[in-house]
Amino acid sequence: MTPPDLDGLRALDARDPLASKRAEFLIPGGVIYLDGNSLGVLPARVPERMERVVREEWGQDLIRSWNTHGWIDLPARVGARIARLIGADADEVIAADSTSVNLFKVLSAALHVAAKGDPRRRVIVAEEDNFPTDLYIAQGLAALLGEARAELRLVAPHRVADAVGDDTAVLMLTQVDYRTGERHDLPAVTRRAHERGALAVWDLAHSAGAFPVDLNGAGADFAVGCGYKYLNGGPGAPAFLYVARRHHADAPNVLSGWMGHASPFEFTSRYTGASGIGQYATGTPSILSLSALDAALEVFEDVEMRLVREKSLSLTRTFIELTRPLCARHGFRLATPEDDARRGSQVSLAHPHGYEIMQALIAAGVVGDFRAPNLLRFGFTPLYTSHEDVWHAVQTLDTVMREGRWQDARYAERNAVT
Amino acid sequence: MTPPDLDGLRALDARDPLASKRAEFLIPGGVIYLDGNSLGVLPARVPERMERVVREEWGQDLIRSWNTHGWIDLPARVGARIARLIGADADEVIAADSTSVNLFKVLSAALHVAAKGDPRRRVIVAEEDNFPTDLYIAQGLAALLGEARAELRLVAPHRVADAVGDDTAVLMLTQVDYRTGERHDLPAVTRRAHERGALAVWDLAHSAGAFPVDLNGAGADFAVGCGYKYLNGGPGAPAFLYVARRHHADAPNVLSGWMGHASPFEFTSRYTGASGIGQYATGTPSILSLSALDAALEVFEDVEMRLVREKSLSLTRTFIELTRPLCARHGFRLATPEDDARRGSQVSLAHPHGYEIMQALIAAGVVGDFRAPNLLRFGFTPLYTSHEDVWHAVQTLDTVMREGRWQDARYAERNAVT
Repeated sequence: MTPPDLDGLRALDARDPLASKRAEFLIPGGVIYLDGNSLGVLPARVPERMERVVREEWGQDLIRSWNTHGWIDLPARVGARIARLIGADADEVIAADSTSVNLFKVLSAALHVAAKGDPRRRVIVAEEDNFPTDLYIAQGLAALLGEARAELRLVAPHRVADAVGDDTAVLMLTQVDYRTGERHDLPAVTRRAHERGALAVWDLAHSAGAFPVDLNGAGADFAVGCGYKYLNGGPGAPAFLYVARRHHADAPNVLSGWMGHASPFEFTSRYTGASGIGQYATGTPSILSLSALDAALEVFEDVEMRLVREKSLSLTRTFIELTRPLCARHGFRLATPEDDARRGSQVSLAHPHGYEIMQALIAAGVVGDFRAPNLLRFGFTPLYTSHEDVWHAVQTLDTVMREGRWQDARYAERNAVT
Repeated sequence: MTPPDLDGLRALDARDPLASKRAEFLIPGGVIYLDGNSLGVLPARVPERMERVVREEWGQDLIRSWNTHGWIDLPARVGARIARLIGADADEVIAADSTSVNLFKVLSAALHVAAKGDPRRRVIVAEEDNFPTDLYIAQGLAALLGEARAELRLVAPHRVADAVGDDTAVLMLTQVDYRTGERHDLPAVTRRAHERGALAVWDLAHSAGAFPVDLNGAGADFAVGCGYKYLNGGPGAPAFLYVARRHHADAPNVLSGWMGHASPFEFTSRYTGASGIGQYATGTPSILSLSALDAALEVFEDVEMRLVREKSLSLTRTFIELTRPLCARHGFRLATPEDDARRGSQVSLAHPHGYEIMQALIAAGVVGDFRAPNLLRFGFTPLYTSHEDVWHAVQTLDTVMREGRWQDARYAERNAVT
C-alpha cells in the first residue's frame, strides 16, 4: 500500500464532517497536540463559562446559586450528557469525585451484589498491566475487606475472561490499554463474564468521547471514566460512574455521604440512600470543576459518535501508515494493533530511547507523551485533530530522528510527571 | 449591660486591625452576607487566578503544566497553607477530595491503628446530632467492615468523652456544631479520649479559618475539614485532611489511588504508599478547584488567627447583645452559648417560623440560612464582616418582624437546598 501523501490527506480533511468542531477549541499556536488522551485541549466555551460561574454565580448570587443556578443538580446533568456518549440512560450516570474514588464505590457495590447471589464469589479478576490506579484501588478494597470477602487476582493480558471462575465476583477491565491503545471487545468480554456468573466493571478512561460505547447494549453492570481526557473537562476534572438500573436497588454506595442521601437537607442522623443513580454521590460537588466539564461536554451535543469513530480510525490508520518507514529507518516498533476493531484512539511506538525522543519531539512542537519503559504515545482526538496535523507530526518525528536531536543531554532529564 | 449603639460599633470598626482585608473580597452590593459558614464570599484574587489557570496553564501549556506550573504539588502546597491555620506542620495536611471522602480515609486509618493496638477497640463514638455526612460515612464504613470490626455508637451531645470505653477505637467529633455554633474544647476532649485509650478524629468544617486551631498542641490524631466555608475556596471546593506525623507509618489509606503511591509515574502494578502525608491522596487532583482554593488562602497569608478570633467574638457578642431585645419582642430564642469559649463564629436563633423569617430576611438583603427544625443561622466572617454590618442586619431583622413580612405566602415555599 502506498503511504498517504499530503494532498490526499488534505482532501480527507476537506470532506471531514467534523472539521468545523476544531473552531470550538482554543488550540495553542505552533503546536500539534497529540496528547488529548492525557489532557484534552481547552474548549472555547469554557473560559466564558468559568468567568460566569466565578463572578456571577459564586461572586454575586452566592449561596442561593445552589437553587437558582441549579448547582445541586449539576452532577446529574453532567452525568446525563456523558450517558449519551457511552450508551447509558440519562439516569444511570453521574459526574463525581475522581475515577479512583468512583471505582472504589462501584467495585465494593459489585462485590456486594455478587456475594448476595453466591457467597463464594469474592474474587476481582483484572489484567496485571491495567492502568495502575485501578489495581491499587482494588488492592486497597481487598485489604480492607480481608481475604474471606475479597481477593484481587491479576492475570496476563487477554486471559481475563478465561480466568473467570466459580469464585469470581467481578471482572474489572479498562477497555483501552493506556500504553498500547489496544481496545477490548466490550460486548464480547461482558457476555463471557456473565456466562460464567461474574459481573463486569469497565473503566472507560480512554473510551468516553473517543468512540461510541454501548454499555446498555452490552449489558454491562458498572463503569467509571475520566473527565479530562477525550471529554476535555480540564486538569483533574470530575470523573463519572455508571450503574445499570437493575442494580440500583441492591448495590449500596459504601462512601455514603450526604449528597447520596434520599433527603440530604432533612439532616437526619440515619443514612438512607437515594433510590436512583444519585445514591452514588458522596460529598458536596465541586461546582467550579463540574461547570468546566459541563461546558466542555456541550461541544459533543451535536456530534454523532459514529463519525468520531470513523475519523479516529482514519487518523490512527494514517499515522500508522506514515510511521511505517520510520520504524525501519529509526528503530521504532508499532505497539498498537493494526486491526481497526482492536484499536482505541491512540497509537504507541516503542523505542529504546523513547523518553528522550519524546522530549525532543515536544521541543519541536509535537506534543505526545511517554510511558515507561519505552513507549511514545500519540492520542488522536477527532474533534480538533486533522489528517494534515498527523502528516506534519510524522514529518517532525522523522526530522528529530534524522538530525539526532534527541541525543541532546537536556532531553534525558526526567520530570516529575512524564 | 447597655446594648451597643451604632457609633460605638463604628468606633470598633475604625480600630479593627483586620479592616483592610475586606477590600480583598468581592462582596455583592446591597447585601449583608452572614452565610460565610456555608459558602464563603469570592476573594478578589480568585477570578484573575482562574482566568490564568484556564487560559494559560490549561489552554496554552496543557499537559506540561503538571511540571511547569507545579500542578502535581498543588494538593501539598494548599495543604501547607491550611496547616498554618490549624496548628499542624506543613507536611501533615493535604487538600483533596471532599470532606466526606477524606473522613472515610481517616476513620478507616484510625480504626486500623486502634485495632493494631488492641483488637477489642472497634467502636466509633460520635454525637447523634453531628453534621449528618460524618455519621453517614461512619455508618457506611461500619456496614462495610461488619460488626466484628466496627460499630458506630451515637451518644447524646456532650456525652461523647464519657462514652469512650475499653471497646472504643475512635472518638469522632465536629468541633463546632453546625446548627447551634457551639464549640467543643478540642484540647480537653482530645486529652480525655487519649486517657481512655481512644484516638481523636476531628471535623474542622466550621473551625478552619474561623479561629486558631492547634491540632498538634492538643495532640490530635486525625482531622478533616472543608474548603468552601471560612476558607472561601468556592462552591464544593476541595477539602483537606490532617494526619499527625506519628501515624504516617502505620495508618494506611484504604482509598489507595495512584496519587498516593510512592512513585506514581513508575506505573507499577503493586501499590506502595508514599511515606508522608502524600499517601492520603487518591485520584488525580482537581486543578481548577484547587487553584481557586489556593488563591483564596493567599488572603490568610498575612493574617494572625488570634486577631480573627478576637474580632469573631466581638461580632458574635455584638449580634447576641443586639438581638436580645428581639428575643423578647418577637419570640426568638438564642440557641448559641453566650460563653465566648463555647462559641464558634456563628450565632443561631430559634423561632417556630424560622424558615419563612429567613426567606423574608434574605429578600430584604441580609443573607443567613435556615436549618431544620427551627434555626436561623448567622455566620460571622471576620475578614469581610464589620460591626456596622451586624448592626444593620439586626435592624433589618427587627423590621421584617415588626412588619410581619415573613407571613407573605411566597416565603413559605421550600427550595431544594435550604
